This record gives sequence, structure tokens and C-alpha cells, in this order.
Amino acid sequence: MTKKIPAVILGATGTVGQRLIRLLEEHPWFEIFAVAASERSVGRPYAEACRWLLPGEPPKHVGEKVVIRLDPQAVSCDRPAIAFSALPAAVARDVEPTFAKAGYVVCSNASAFREEPDVPLLIPEVNPDHLALLKRQQETRGWDGLIVTNPNCSTTGIVLATKALDVAFGLRRVVATTLQAISGAGYPGVPSLDILGNAIPWIPGEEEKIATETRCLLGRIERETRIEADITVSAQVNRVPVVDGHTLCLSLGFDRLPSPTAAADALRAFRGSETVRGLPSAPPRSVHVMDGKDRPQPRLDLSEDSGMVVHVGRIRPCPILDLRLVGLVHNTLRGAAGGAILNAELLVAEGWLG
Amino acid sequence: MTKKIPAVILGATGTVGQRLIRLLEEHPWFEIFAVAASERSVGRPYAEACRWLLPGEPPKHVGEKVVIRLDPQAVSCDRPAIAFSALPAAVARDVEPTFAKAGYVVCSNASAFREEPDVPLLIPEVNPDHLALLKRQQETRGWDGLIVTNPNCSTTGIVLATKALDVAFGLRRVVATTLQAISGAGYPGVPSLDILGNAIPWIPGEEEKIATETRCLLGRIERETRIEADITVSAQVNRVPVVDGHTLCLSLGFDRLPSPTAAADALRAFRGSETVRGLPSAPPRSVHVMDGKDRPQPRLDLSEDSGMVVHVGRIRPCPILDLRLVGLVHNTLRGAAGGAILNAELLVAEGWLG
Amino acid sequence: MTKKIPAVILGATGTVGQRLIRLLEEHPWFEIFAVAASERSVGRPYAEACRWLLPGEPPKHVGEKVVIRLDPQAVSCDRPAIAFSALPAAVARDVEPTFAKAGYVVCSNASAFREEPDVPLLIPEVNPDHLALLKRQQETRGWDGLIVTNPNCSTTGIVLATKALDVAFGLRRVVATTLQAISGAGYPGVPSLDILGNAIPWIPGEEEKIATETRCLLGRIERETRIEADITVSAQVNRVPVVDGHTLCLSLGFDRLPSPTAAADALRAFRGSETVRGLPSAPPRSVHVMDGKDRPQPRLDLSEDSGMVVHVGRIRPCPILDLRLVGLVHNTLRGAAGGAILNAELLVAEGWLG
Amino acid sequence: MTKKIPAVILGATGTVGQRLIRLLEEHPWFEIFAVAASERSVGRPYAEACRWLLPGEPPKHVGEKVVIRLDPQAVSCDRPAIAFSALPAAVARDVEPTFAKAGYVVCSNASAFREEPDVPLLIPEVNPDHLALLKRQQETRGWDGLIVTNPNCSTTGIVLATKALDVAFGLRRVVATTLQAISGAGYPGVPSLDILGNAIPWIPGEEEKIATETRCLLGRIERETRIEADITVSAQVNRVPVVDGHTLCLSLGFDRLPSPTAAADALRAFRGSETVRGLPSAPPRSVHVMDGKDRPQPRLDLSEDSGMVVHVGRIRPCPILDLRLVGLVHNTLRGAAGGAILNAELLVAEGWLG
Repeated sequence: MTKKIPAVILGATGTVGQRLIRLLEEHPWFEIFAVAASERSVGRPYAEACRWLLPGEPPKHVGEKVVIRLDPQAVSCDRPAIAFSALPAAVARDVEPTFAKAGYVVCSNASAFREEPDVPLLIPEVNPDHLALLKRQQETRGWDGLIVTNPNCSTTGIVLATKALDVAFGLRRVVATTLQAISGAGYPGVPSLDILGNAIPWIPGEEEKIATETRCLLGRIERETRIEADITVSAQVNRVPVVDGHTLCLSLGFDRLPSPTAAADALRAFRGSETVRGLPSAPPRSVHVMDGKDRPQPRLDLSEDSGMVVHVGRIRPCPILDLRLVGLVHNTLRGAAGGAILNAELLVAEGWLG
Repeated sequence: MTKKIPAVILGATGTVGQRLIRLLEEHPWFEIFAVAASERSVGRPYAEACRWLLPGEPPKHVGEKVVIRLDPQAVSCDRPAIAFSALPAAVARDVEPTFAKAGYVVCSNASAFREEPDVPLLIPEVNPDHLALLKRQQETRGWDGLIVTNPNCSTTGIVLATKALDVAFGLRRVVATTLQAISGAGYPGVPSLDILGNAIPWIPGEEEKIATETRCLLGRIERETRIEADITVSAQVNRVPVVDGHTLCLSLGFDRLPSPTAAADALRAFRGSETVRGLPSAPPRSVHVMDGKDRPQPRLDLSEDSGMVVHVGRIRPCPILDLRLVGLVHNTLRGAAGGAILNAELLVAEGWLG
Repeated sequence: MTKKIPAVILGATGTVGQRLIRLLEEHPWFEIFAVAASERSVGRPYAEACRWLLPGEPPKHVGEKVVIRLDPQAVSCDRPAIAFSALPAAVARDVEPTFAKAGYVVCSNASAFREEPDVPLLIPEVNPDHLALLKRQQETRGWDGLIVTNPNCSTTGIVLATKALDVAFGLRRVVATTLQAISGAGYPGVPSLDILGNAIPWIPGEEEKIATETRCLLGRIERETRIEADITVSAQVNRVPVVDGHTLCLSLGFDRLPSPTAAADALRAFRGSETVRGLPSAPPRSVHVMDGKDRPQPRLDLSEDSGMVVHVGRIRPCPILDLRLVGLVHNTLRGAAGGAILNAELLVAEGWLG
Repeated sequence: MTKKIPAVILGATGTVGQRLIRLLEEHPWFEIFAVAASERSVGRPYAEACRWLLPGEPPKHVGEKVVIRLDPQAVSCDRPAIAFSALPAAVARDVEPTFAKAGYVVCSNASAFREEPDVPLLIPEVNPDHLALLKRQQETRGWDGLIVTNPNCSTTGIVLATKALDVAFGLRRVVATTLQAISGAGYPGVPSLDILGNAIPWIPGEEEKIATETRCLLGRIERETRIEADITVSAQVNRVPVVDGHTLCLSLGFDRLPSPTAAADALRAFRGSETVRGLPSAPPRSVHVMDGKDRPQPRLDLSEDSGMVVHVGRIRPCPILDLRLVGLVHNTLRGAAGGAILNAELLVAEGWLG
């Protein structure tokens, strides 16, 4: 690769957009070509239009870019390009197809197309075979480009923490209770009066997404069609006063009962395909099995492996289903911006760009 | 009652001891006669010996009392009296029997005797019939007094939130994930460096207590013997940065499938016996069923009904077991000091004092 | 008083509006007659229109009231009435005069009219003589009613903590650094991502208000004209992750050097006029001088005396100015809703109603 | 340097000890040779003896080291070495001299010797000339080695934020109010019940240290004697629920009145000597002047430049003294472990080792 691949950030001023920009700052394959956002930001330098919420400042060359409209016509790029979408679902539904149609490889963090039967909902280590949907997507929709989505942040953690167990023991039931960080709600997101010193036992739409997306991700592809996995999910989500990091308390039921040791071994051995392991944003291990009886914890464990690893601890028998464990996922890295970038890397490696 | 019943506070300087003192400040039946604590406090006025952690200051007449030894001989009381114990388990194991032997009605918040077969583990609305163990206790142990215990704070919430459902539908399985407040660990308790902006997926001994005590409380008495309930409990506890209030996320399995409406009705109708309802510390309702989709929440709901009510919300079908719901209990009031006082009131009403 | 005085709440759905409703729930003199708010709430029952943020639920009879327009014509009240205003400043500027003109005694928490030369900025214990401005206000503006304002929440604390010192020693200079609670910003107010585990050294307009309002409140009235006090204020405000309670760190310079003991004595002796002391919402003491070296603290001290007392601790010499001390004010009670009600009570006691 | 300089960590298991170990993990000049701690850790592998509180795990080669006694005889090192001390003051007073006597260059974070007239209290960019005290120290005390100390964490921030202003305008008065992070109290440190959602207006001994140490650091050396600066400091410290990062709100008085612009220019131009600028841990700039009206903030700014830079914002006139500004220092990096390491680097560069 002599020249980096141009990337357009859709929804560049939000919290996930900012994470994308930070992660792409020194990316070996991609470089930010344009930043696009809603009307009130268009025409202003990014550094002014954006209330930057990450430590430090936006990269200088991005900060100076003028924000463009959410329209492929506004981008003056003459090479095949990637569009990373951090748009709200309602906006994504209209905007993302225009980019796909214009030839962009759209890697979306939005929920708008996650459940479309011809749109891969993708975690590279988990279901790279779902890219088989893309041919049908392009044919049916008449797009030169394509859309691939990454799952909801909690689902990303749950699926990475259970994929290896599903392969080895046949996952059938998941009772999930989550403790989710405030950054999952974007900005301004959760008012501090609601959450400081408090816990809120509900997040709109989240429990439904966890159930649906888990079945998609762990499903299989037959004749270019996605067959959802036969897994029942019962989810209770909670918002807690943690900045980053969703804690996932799971009880799991399987076809074949795993011992805690066998489960830990399966998780430790879990890794993506050789192609996936070679991607720039792939962590050295996708799951980190922890022995400490009080781990994982957001503050102590979250930043490891660039926030792309899922931590799993407290693996033990469940007296009701089969296995109990606790997972931890970095919701804005692996669960959002980092997930979208890893997807883009896989698409490039698999030859879907240009 | 022309004269109030004297009460001795064992472990008076700790957080539960302080709550006991505050709750007894204007109690219609009881008055604090003596405050006892460990050696390093003995001989000093209570206000000096104690690092008071509740709003305001200790009641003046208690603040001036000199702290005495944890020894019935140190109390110069000539009437039948109650000893409220907020001692650590290891100390309680030695001290509580000396008070029971000396004729005290010991109402203990400690875990030391909770699992003894002849010691009632008591929630007045739930299992007042377990007082039938007391006769055997006094005979076997040769005590003039007695020991009654109240359960662990999370268990109190779980059992109050499920007792009515157990009666109506036959509770068999409980998958519980808790979000527990820092005050549950006493003082100094959880270091702020461990919990500020964090969540910790473990509390020593807590998951075991929840399983064991739930089976005791929902068990029955046959021929002065406690038969544990046949209920399987799978618990995952978490510490979260909330000051007071344990949130309890439950999936429940029953003999007979309840509809959410039937479950809510059963919980709304739940109340103790007529005797229990007349106790001074009994709340107007023991369970508050909430309709708001994001309730209960510690900050908004905890202080209602003097912290003696358990809130239950989000009652809905569980696709794996039968029912999902979220409970909230005030861990230092209903789950500790208030629970001990309500037990004492029941014992007085049932004629166990003097 | 055989019948309670009717009260209209302007801006009833916001956080200060809610506090007003809670405080008036059992008020001996006032009763809520109508709740008014912006267009999007008008026509809906209050309980539906309002996102209630205080513990428990709104009083039933208020919850059932239909929200009316911010217009005196919308109120069908045939008796002299009070309008409590919790409106944003920009709205208050238009709406409050229409109520004053229609004969209402408007007690406003908004900043809109605080600096008008003929509008009293009032704390009953501090400057009841400023009511002398009202006659001119009514004459000049041709109003049957009137407007009285209470100061900004931090200023309320600073002035209550220093008034007695000003009287005794002549206050000339105030270096103030505040640690302010999130509830001061209303709802949704401060995004949790901004403040959880963080401190923000700025609040828009706050430092200017502290300086200006302090000079007004400690000023005097001559010939129905307010003469600002000759006091220089240097303020640095900070937002901190505390729910309620502004901590005020002050260095004070005086005409006559007070010893810490003399200062504490002056503060302890500080009380309003006999009239003020008899008002229903007046606390037994306006300033609580604390000896504990680590006091006052929001969590431990804020709820005392219904949140109407200002706590002062750590009184000691300042090696640069004269005196150092730390104040604590309940920003949404004494500093907002409670302050407005106390003002209304004084106006009634002084015969300004009807 | 062909071989790295051996370093012994005294008080290796505490929070500052852990920071030292993390910072030395890949240090170009130093390598950890031994870890020493109190009796209850001695003889155990460091990874077991220590409750590791930083993200990730201790470096493997350190985790495997057996903890030794706080005694130079326990170290089997045959080369000139550095001892980094993170000991409590009371222990440091006894232990540090034994290492200095045994030839070690002791770089101490403890307060034990900070005020000794022959012990440099050192910040390399601020007062490297104070190393002139060392000759006298070694002669008087008959030590082959030496002790150099770094200041208290708040003082470090205050002095770095004002040194350039002192040089340019002659600092005479400092009114300081701080908002200090919980990590400043070590581990277990501040109980969460004390600080969650709260602010505490006192930290034992802190205000005195700020005053004394500021005068030392900004003082001058004449004939190998330290002359304290003629600067009056009035400090009010507060503990706030922030994990890392002390916010410092300062009002400053000078001999010559600086304009805010001149002050900002002086701070931007501030840097250490050429020697200091070349040290491995020296940040590219020692002070970062920020323009944002709501900066600096712990969460957004603390991690910049490895936590070794002090941020300064909100520079403006003070109507009482001359200048107002807000500083932010990373209390466990620049204010503790990082400060000690930078001191060690300067000592090596100046030839004080071996």
C-alpha cells in the first residue's frame, strides 16, 4: 500500500465520531479525508464545530478541516474510500445508502441497518463469514459500495465473551444483567442529576438490541442468507456512574455442560482467523481470561490492549443454567469506534475496497 | 406501656450502630439505656468515641453516655431489656450468647448465628412463624433470653420482593445480579480509590449468604425445626458507587407461571399479619410496585416510607425463567438497623420480653 | 388567617419549580392554586408534563392540575395571590411584569430583575429594609403588584455567612472560591460525561453575579435608592460532582480586624428581626457555626434545619486578608426555592399582599 | 551509559511505590534492582505482597522479586545506586538516612526531611541551584550518599504554575484554594463513604505544607544556605471525588503588576535549564497555558505530556490581589513519583551519582 485509503467520518462531531478521529490519527492504512456532520456544523472548521470531549485536542490536520454536508457529492475524493458512520440511527437510515450507492465502503456504528437481512452485522473474530451477504446486498440494491455494521456496545461484549463457548459447547440461553457506562449514551447523553450516585435499571431499546443482535452474530450463513442462532436471551440493563466500560454479568446455558476450566480454556484459545489476527487494530488476544476473584473492573482493566480486548472473569458453575461469568467491554472502543475500524480493516483485507 | 423498654446497643460506634441510635431516638417503645463497643472506645463519652457518619449529630443524651464493655455485667439495668447487636460476626459469636444467657432479647444484625438451626432468621412480614424455634433455643441452650437475627441486606430485599410470589406461585429458581451500595461495607469499608467511577464484581461471602439465607427465610417450620425451602439461587453481586440502596435484578422461576399482572397484584396485596402491620416501624406497605419503566432508582425512591419499604419495578416475562423484575432495598435501614428494630417490636408484641 | 393564600408557580416543571411545590405541600400560609409552564407542557396534567426529579412523587392534588400558560389571564383566581417564579431569566423578563401588573406579589428566583434599581434583591435576615424600594417600584411602573427577587444560590450562602461580620467589622474584600453542586444548573443541566469524577473551573455568568449581588445585598437604602456596598469581590467558581450543596471557601478583609473567636460569636448571634424569626420557613438559626475541623460537608450537614441554615466552619486568621472560613449553603433550598418562599412570607408579614 | 543504574524502591507496595515501578518499567537510565517494604510484605514475591491499583499488572520482572527489608544491608548491590523513597513520613525519618549513609542517592517523596536546612526540596525546572546544599549535607552528616526531596503534590503544582511569574514580577502573596483528588491520600486512603458525592474542606497538615514548601522552593541559596522566599501563603484545601488531579485556584499578588497577557507569555516561555530540558522525564513544556474558558479539567487535561506538565488556565486580573488563575497538576505523577524520578535524573546529570 503506497498511499493510505481515504476515510470520511459521518457524524464526526459526536462522541463516537471523536473516537474514530483519535483512532485514525496514526492508522497505518487509513487517513481522514473529510469530516461530515449535521447542518449546524457544516462550513465551520472541525475544531470549532466540535465540543471535543477526549483528553487533549483533536489532531491538528483534522481540526482545520471544514465540516462538510452528509452527502457524497460534498466529498471531492477520486479514489475508493471508506465512510465511517457514527450517525444517529434516524439520520443513518437516509445518509448511509447514499454513500453506499456512491461507491463507499460504509462501516457503520449506527443501528439503522443492523437487522437488514442483507447487511452483515460483523465482529471480525466472530462471524467473518457473514461478509457473504455483501454480494447479494450489492446486487439487490444496485450499489457500487456497501454497508457493514458493528453491533451495539453491550452485544459486542456479550458475543466476544461467549463465541468460543458457543463453538465448543453450543450456547442456548443467556441471562444477562449489565452495568453500563454513561459514555454509551453519547453527549450530552445522561444528565448528571440522573446518574451521580445512582443506578438506573433501564436504557431505551437496549435489551431488545442485545437479544436480536446476539442471535444475528452467532447465527450462520446459508446460501447467502443469515440464519439466526437458536439462542434465547433475557437481558436487564442498568446505567451506572462509570465513565467507560460495560460490565456484563452472564448466566449461560449450553447444549453440552462445560466445566469452568474447559470454558476458560476455550476462551483463552479463542482468536480470529489468520487474516483477522493480522489486522492493525486486532488485539493480541480477543478475550482476556482473568483469575482475580474481583475482576474484571472498568478502572483497572479497561485500557489494556487498546480497549479492543474483552475481559472475562469469575467463571464458575451456575446452579440454575450452566455457567456464570462476568465480562467487561470498552464500550466506545471495541464496542463502537474500534469495532467499526476493525470491520473496515477486514473488508480491505478481503478485497472489498475498490 | 408506661415505661419504655431499655435497649443496649452492642457495636454502637459502627455505621449500623449509628443507624440504630438514630432510629431509636424517638422510638415509642424503646429507649437507649447503654452503648457498648470494643475496648478502644470503652470509657469515653459516645460522642467522642464515635466518628458520626450520619447527617447532623448523635442525640445529645446518647452522645453523653460513657461507652461500656461488651459484657452484660457492665450494664446496670434491672428490667428486662433488649440488646441490639451491630457487632462484626466474629465478635458477635462470643458476645451475643453472654447477653442471651443474662436474659436479654438479642436482636442481631450480625451473621454469626443466622444459620444456627435453633435461631430464627426473621423478617416479620415474611416468616413470623419461625419464632417457634425460640422455645427450643432457650431449652437447649439454657438461656433466659434469646437471639433472633435479621438477614443480610441484599437477602432482605430479595425475600421481601419475592415472598408474595412464592406464596402465590411457588418460587423455585432465582438468578440474581445485584448492584450494591458502599454503605453495605460499613466504615471505613470500601476505599474510594476502589470504587469511585468503578464497579467491582465481587463482595466477600455475599453470594453464599444470599443463597443460604433465602432458603432459610422462605423455608417452613415443622415440629420446631426449620425446613429450608427448595429454591435454587444463582447470585452475582457487584459493588457500585452508590451511597445507600441495593438494586436487585432478578429472574425468577416458579411452579406455576405468573403473568406480570398477577405478579404485580400479588406483590401489591402483600402485607404482614395484623400484629406485624401494627408495629411502630412497619411501613404502610412492605412492597411498593412501581410502573415507571426506569424505576426503582436509589436516589429517587430510597427514602420513601422511612426506608422500610422494598420497591419493585420492571415486572415482565423472562424468556428463560418465568419473570424478570428489579427490586430496591435500603440496605442500612430495612436491610440492617430497621430490620433489627422491627424484629424487636415483633418479639415484644408476641410477648417474648420478660 | 382563615384561608390560605393562593400561589401560582411559574416555571413549575423545572427543578426549582419542583422544589417550590414540595416546600408548599404543607405550608401553613400558602397553597398552590395553579401551575404554569412553557407551551410544551400547557394543557397536560402536571404529573405527566413534568419529569419529577425529587424523591417520591409530586403531591397528588398538584399532579392532577392542568398546566396553564405563563399568563395572568389564564389564572382564575379572585383573591390577592403570590406568584413564585422559577423561570429562566429570558422568559422571566417578559412574564414576571405581566403578573406584577395584574396585581401579583411576584417572588422570583430568576436573575432577570435582580439588578434593577427599584427591585429588592432580598434575604430576610440580611436586608429587609430593602423592601423600601417597593413603593417606588409600584409608582414608577404603575403596577398593582410587585416583584421581589432572591439572589443567586452561591451569593445567598456568601452573604448569609458574612452579613454578621460585615455589621460587626466592616466587610471590604472577599476572595471566594466555590465548589458548586450540579443541581445548581437545573435539568438536564450538566451532562454526566462532563462532571463524573471531574471538576470544571467555570460556570457561565456565576462569578459576575456573586460580585454584583453581594454588593447589592450588603448595600443600604437611602431615600428609596439602593447604595451598593463598597466591597470588592474576587470569585473563582468550580462545578464538582456533588448533587446538592455549594461549598464556599472565603478569605475576608475588614475595616476592623476580627479575632476568629469574635467572628464566631458574631455569626452565632446573627439572626433576623423579630418579624423574620417568626416566619414559618425561617430556620431556628440562620448560621450554624461548626467546630469540627473538617466541616461543613454537603453530605453530613446539608439537610439540617430544612436546608435553610448556612453552615460555617474552619474560621481562622487569613495571613493575607483577615479571616478565612468555609461556608455551605443548600443551593436549591435556601439558595433558590426556600429563599423565594421566605421572601414571600416576609412580604405577607409586612402587609404587602392585597 | 552502557549499563542502567540500579534503583531500590522503598515503600514499593503503596500507591506512589506502584507509580514509581510503572514509570521505571522502561526508563532509559534506571532499572529496578530491589523492592523494599514493611515487615508484613518482606519475603513474599512483590506481585503477591502488593495490592496493585494501577491499570494492568506490575511488570513481570518486578512482580517476581522478593520484597526485602527497609535496610541497605538487605540489598546486594555492588554499584552506586538510587533509592526512591515512597515511605510514610514517620518511617522515612529512620530509614532514609541509613540508605544515604550507605552511599545511596535517596530521592524521596516523603515529607520527613523536606524542611531540613541542608536537604534540597527540589523541582528541577524551579530551583536546581538548591543542589548546592548537598555538599554541606554530606559533610555535616558524614554521608557518602545524600537525600533530595520532592515537594507535596499541591505545592508542586502551585510552584510550577507561579515560578515564571515570580521571576518576572516578584511573587509576594498567594491565596490558594485547592480541589484535591483522592489518590493523594494513598491506599486505602479516603473511605468512599466520606467522599462519594461529597467535598471535605480539610486535609491533615496540607495547608501548612503548602505554605512552608512554597517559600522553600521559591527561596534562594546563599553561601550554601537556603533563604526562604518572602511570600505569604493562605491556603484552604478541599478533598473532592476526583481520582487523579489537583485543581489549584490561585489569587496572586506581585511586586510588579503583570497583565494577564504578560503573565501568560511568561508562563509559556518558562522552561528549565538546558540540562533539565534534556532529562528523559522532562516534559516538552513544564507549563501548558490553556485558553478555553472552562479549562483545565482533570479528566480532559491530566494525561497530557505523561502527566508531567502543569496546566494553567483562566488567567485574569484579580480585583483584590493582582492575578487570578487555575492550575492543574497530576498529583501522583508530577506531584509524586514522576517528580522523584525527574529529581534523580537531574542528580545523575549533575554528577552526584557515584
